[in-house]
Amino acid sequence: MKLGSLKSGRDGKLVVVSHDLAWCADASHIAPTLQAALDDWDTIAPQLETLATDLAHDVIPKERFHEREAASPLPRAYQWADGSAYVNHVVLVRQARGAEVPESFWEDPLMYQGGSDSFIGPRDPILLPDETWGCDLEAEIVVVTGDVKQGASRDEALAAIRLIGLVNDVSLRNLIPAELGKGFGFVQSKPASAFSPVFVTPDELPNWKEGKLHGTLNADLNGQPFGRADAGVDMTFDFGTLVAHLAKTRDLVAGSIIGSGTVSNRDADGGPGKPIAEGGLGYSCIAEVRMVEQIQDGEMKTPFLKAGDSVRIWMEDEHGHATFGTIEQDVVKP
Amino acid sequence: MKLGSLKSGRDGKLVVVSHDLAWCADASHIAPTLQAALDDWDTIAPQLETLATDLAHDVIPKERFHEREAASPLPRAYQWADGSAYVNHVVLVRQARGAEVPESFWEDPLMYQGGSDSFIGPRDPILLPDETWGCDLEAEIVVVTGDVKQGASRDEALAAIRLIGLVNDVSLRNLIPAELGKGFGFVQSKPASAFSPVFVTPDELPNWKEGKLHGTLNADLNGQPFGRADAGVDMTFDFGTLVAHLAKTRDLVAGSIIGSGTVSNRDADGGPGKPIAEGGLGYSCIAEVRMVEQIQDGEMKTPFLKAGDSVRIWMEDEHGHATFGTIEQDVVKP
Repeated sequence: MKLGSLKSGRDGKLVVVSHDLAWCADASHIAPTLQAALDDWDTIAPQLETLATDLAHDVIPKERFHEREAASPLPRAYQWADGSAYVNHVVLVRQARGAEVPESFWEDPLMYQGGSDSFIGPRDPILLPDETWGCDLEAEIVVVTGDVKQGASRDEALAAIRLIGLVNDVSLRNLIPAELGKGFGFVQSKPASAFSPVFVTPDELPNWKEGKLHGTLNADLNGQPFGRADAGVDMTFDFGTLVAHLAKTRDLVAGSIIGSGTVSNRDADGGPGKPIAEGGLGYSCIAEVRMVEQIQDGEMKTPFLKAGDSVRIWMEDEHGHATFGTIEQDVVKP
Repeated sequence: MKLGSLKSGRDGKLVVVSHDLAWCADASHIAPTLQAALDDWDTIAPQLETLATDLAHDVIPKERFHEREAASPLPRAYQWADGSAYVNHVVLVRQARGAEVPESFWEDPLMYQGGSDSFIGPRDPILLPDETWGCDLEAEIVVVTGDVKQGASRDEALAAIRLIGLVNDVSLRNLIPAELGKGFGFVQSKPASAFSPVFVTPDELPNWKEGKLHGTLNADLNGQPFGRADAGVDMTFDFGTLVAHLAKTRDLVAGSIIGSGTVSNRDADGGPGKPIAEGGLGYSCIAEVRMVEQIQDGEMKTPFLKAGDSVRIWMEDEHGHATFGTIEQDVVKP
């Protein structure tokens, strides 16, 4: 099933959304919010499944689902931790910063604890007061877990995954070097992220296999194809491994969101990916294309985001429908 | 007023607690949880204040408040970000790791985004499956904010502080170097923190001045005085500055918890603090005493926490009562 939250109060109003995202049914009589559903998933999920079936059979009241009216499925969450499972991306971005990639990065997942208190909606603008911050998109896959016990194995962690979605993990590239230089990770360089209009249960995703979501993650920049990387390719750590990594020393509460890191594919020749215009699969963030430009032309040419730019991120099912809806954000100077 | 949460469900049950912490009154008819109160503070706080007055005048039903039955005031929160406002501590701990302290650390707050999804109660054990992880206490002051807008000034941030408390920010010292070496901050090296049994509004704290809480932060280790540092001394960044730092690039939602970092005082001679047995003010974490031992004796002698050890953290008011209750934790091998 597909679950979303309509904008309402601090936590939105839970709706079940039809497979094609055209319709939704109010689910707030079952659980007022998605967090409430996740808190009591074993009891609530079957009731939501029944509602989803009734919606599909058109036997209950329904209303049009407008992605522009959707809040983040979890407008605020108790946890957002983002991995860097596509080590190819890490290699390129570190190269761009002049930083080295230790060999251990291929065996020990890199992850940061992100701010989870105030996500923006999938169609909300990216408010950018200062363009010199170097604003970038990062297109990623995310999972939402149930409760996970400290020390959970990879398989236990995998079994605890309740929902899958997408994120634009907005990053302020020019704030990163100084902040990482302090050694305590990201704080100011990661403003509010935007998640996809709906999160989807694994059983509805034929491309969800062994903790990886296969298929093309589309990213457009100003209406032009920018990224078409396959999320199932070059993912060094699957989501079970990422969740278990996070749970090594403490319990995770239901509703924890864990990200894949920026999706990134190597080129067929093993080198960094090529732009789509040159027959490649493109990029899921601007930092990566800038690095490739630096390598190829000795100069970073693609600018970071500025007011007026627009970003679209989505995946398609076998019918060409956007599986999770579309993240679509304009950059706005407040 | 003083607010706590009795253990109940995922978010506890809100109670108003008497000034001496002997009694409490059920506040769940006003707001079921502390988060709910913070979500609608302007409406809820006056009602809670009335309840606190009625409790003080003994005109409403009350029950004994047992700190051992208290959950974390916020058993899970949408945000936990911890500063390092006592730069003296940062200098010593970095020295211990052989890492340098850039000059900018005295002007630009150091802060990390912590896991906020599953805090343990103030009397809950610290479950330590592996003693080689190097488990340490960190005694700190925390504040809980209301909503804070992106770009808030220091004064605006200060005005948004709703509650003040203490934390034992448990750290796994031997996991830190490898994790920080990866550059993305703490994940596994920061297990669940434990907060004080109650959080207190600023108006009830005569020692809360200009965004700093003055007075002795007591830490005992295995029943012996270990730390008696003054939280108002050597705090390079006040809480208004810390909250504004966090809010530079995104909104903060009500219920965000921001920590001071380990409280640490220089010795009267300007050098690192001396142990209490030598007439000093001691330490708020083991890493610091180990560093001082290294400097003085060429050898770190005080071991990190192991099963059977106990930690107590509290502050006292002018009557010798524990203002926020006492964090009291045994280390247990699960």
